[in-house]
Amino acid sequence: MTAAEDIMLDHSPTLAAALAERHGSPPAFALPALSAEAAAVLETILGHRSQRAYLPVPLPEGALELAVAAAQSAATSSNLQAWSVVAVRDPGIKAQINALSGEQAQIAAAPVLLVWLADLSRLRAAAEGEGSAAEGLDYLESLVIGIVDATLAAQSAVIALEAQGLGTCYIGGIRNAADRVAAILGLPAEVLPLFGLTLGVPDPARPARVKPRLPLAAVLHQDRYDPTRGAASVAPYAEVLHGFQSAEGLPRADWHRIVAQRVATPAALKGRENLTRYLRSLGFGLK
Amino acid sequence: MTAAEDIMLDHSPTLAAALAERHGSPPAFALPALSAEAAAVLETILGHRSQRAYLPVPLPEGALELAVAAAQSAATSSNLQAWSVVAVRDPGIKAQINALSGEQAQIAAAPVLLVWLADLSRLRAAAEGEGSAAEGLDYLESLVIGIVDATLAAQSAVIALEAQGLGTCYIGGIRNAADRVAAILGLPAEVLPLFGLTLGVPDPARPARVKPRLPLAAVLHQDRYDPTRGAASVAPYAEVLHGFQSAEGLPRADWHRIVAQRVATPAALKGRENLTRYLRSLGFGLK
Repeated sequence: MTAAEDIMLDHSPTLAAALAERHGSPPAFALPALSAEAAAVLETILGHRSQRAYLPVPLPEGALELAVAAAQSAATSSNLQAWSVVAVRDPGIKAQINALSGEQAQIAAAPVLLVWLADLSRLRAAAEGEGSAAEGLDYLESLVIGIVDATLAAQSAVIALEAQGLGTCYIGGIRNAADRVAAILGLPAEVLPLFGLTLGVPDPARPARVKPRLPLAAVLHQDRYDPTRGAASVAPYAEVLHGFQSAEGLPRADWHRIVAQRVATPAALKGRENLTRYLRSLGFGLK
Repeated sequence: MTAAEDIMLDHSPTLAAALAERHGSPPAFALPALSAEAAAVLETILGHRSQRAYLPVPLPEGALELAVAAAQSAATSSNLQAWSVVAVRDPGIKAQINALSGEQAQIAAAPVLLVWLADLSRLRAAAEGEGSAAEGLDYLESLVIGIVDATLAAQSAVIALEAQGLGTCYIGGIRNAADRVAAILGLPAEVLPLFGLTLGVPDPARPARVKPRLPLAAVLHQDRYDPTRGAASVAPYAEVLHGFQSAEGLPRADWHRIVAQRVATPAALKGRENLTRYLRSLGFGLK
């Protein structure tokens, strides 16, 4: 036995259970041997759930700062670091944002609402300080860099927060009236409020459940995209999702039906059909 | 001592060192007490580095599937799961994509190139199967949902891969000629190749170094955005970055200067100034 094998442990039972909960059936692939540290990371990530009920207590000291340092440790395009985040604790500001984001109970309950920003303003200032016209920032590509950078950062923060026992829930409704949220937060030009993230200590009386996802084969393609994968794997997923809905006391609904309603009309986007207009009013070139 | 305190360990020395490496100075906040499992997660995330040199060996069995299951465990807007991923192992296909993405050594060296996709095609099929016109998919908002979903998924996969001892590097150059990459991969309409991710077993002879980031105070705002934070914190960052450049044998360059060059002109975007055109040719409405 080599030194490396010596420290490897067989965590397959716990991980296999987490995978079965995520997919509604046992994993169809062989699990690699993992160290105890690696297993802890995988169990945190596989155990993710959106937590909407929080205790009315503040965050532990240092928890948020540690999560933001984790966010900064994510990759970023060319080290541009084209993102920022606002931690909203002020109840008045939080209520104003909630009123524009669909009045969601988790925003009201959370001690902190993070608003993640695709931020080109710091790049504009840095480049113009060097005498650059910074014309590249006027292109849709630069907004995409900001969106990707902010999202990589946020997801590392989420995993860091969940590892600390905190609960989170992403809030896409921040974009319903992105221009007005930007005004409330005093954002400079070329900064988009991309999504919110509520966080807090989970209420143990109202635990969240793992939501099952499409089969792995529906999203993972080999060498080329196989359009038949999505269609073939959606039917068994309907059954898995019904089980989740039943356990949560939710009405039974097929995934197709949920998708169809969610994307049916511009009005179903709840204001976000105006995103292009919001972006132009926030100073993005979108070339 | 309560049961909870009983299992808490003080990992501050290791975490403080990781934070100091990331910011070039000791943390200015108190570290929370963490369980051994939580510390393992934080150390994985804080220790991220882009790894470009790989051994010429395949991935361990099950490592990729486990990472994709981790990706699926990330949050997704309204459970739409608007992403897919192609695992490219075929040397010919990988070389074609590399030729369009800047001929990067890490793409040639990696046994696997993942191409992460913002994927509205599965939603279009599901909605139209229910008789929906799916008009919402024609809006920029739906592309943003796909980009955010794909990026949340990819970052969870990266952390899962790094926990397993594998190395990764994001490839934004995939967008240089996104339309041609889409053709090579046989993507249906409304599917964007968003970024690549090389992965493999790190070459221990060529380890990657942690790249320092802007001070935490530059990116974390309290209640409202403070535009003076970015400007104030960029000057000390220049020194920290010079230390990294010197240790890596890279030419000394200020962050301002790097940013200025990177965004100076449309041509500096290396083809990605055409992203709007690529997206239209791929069938996105962008309303």
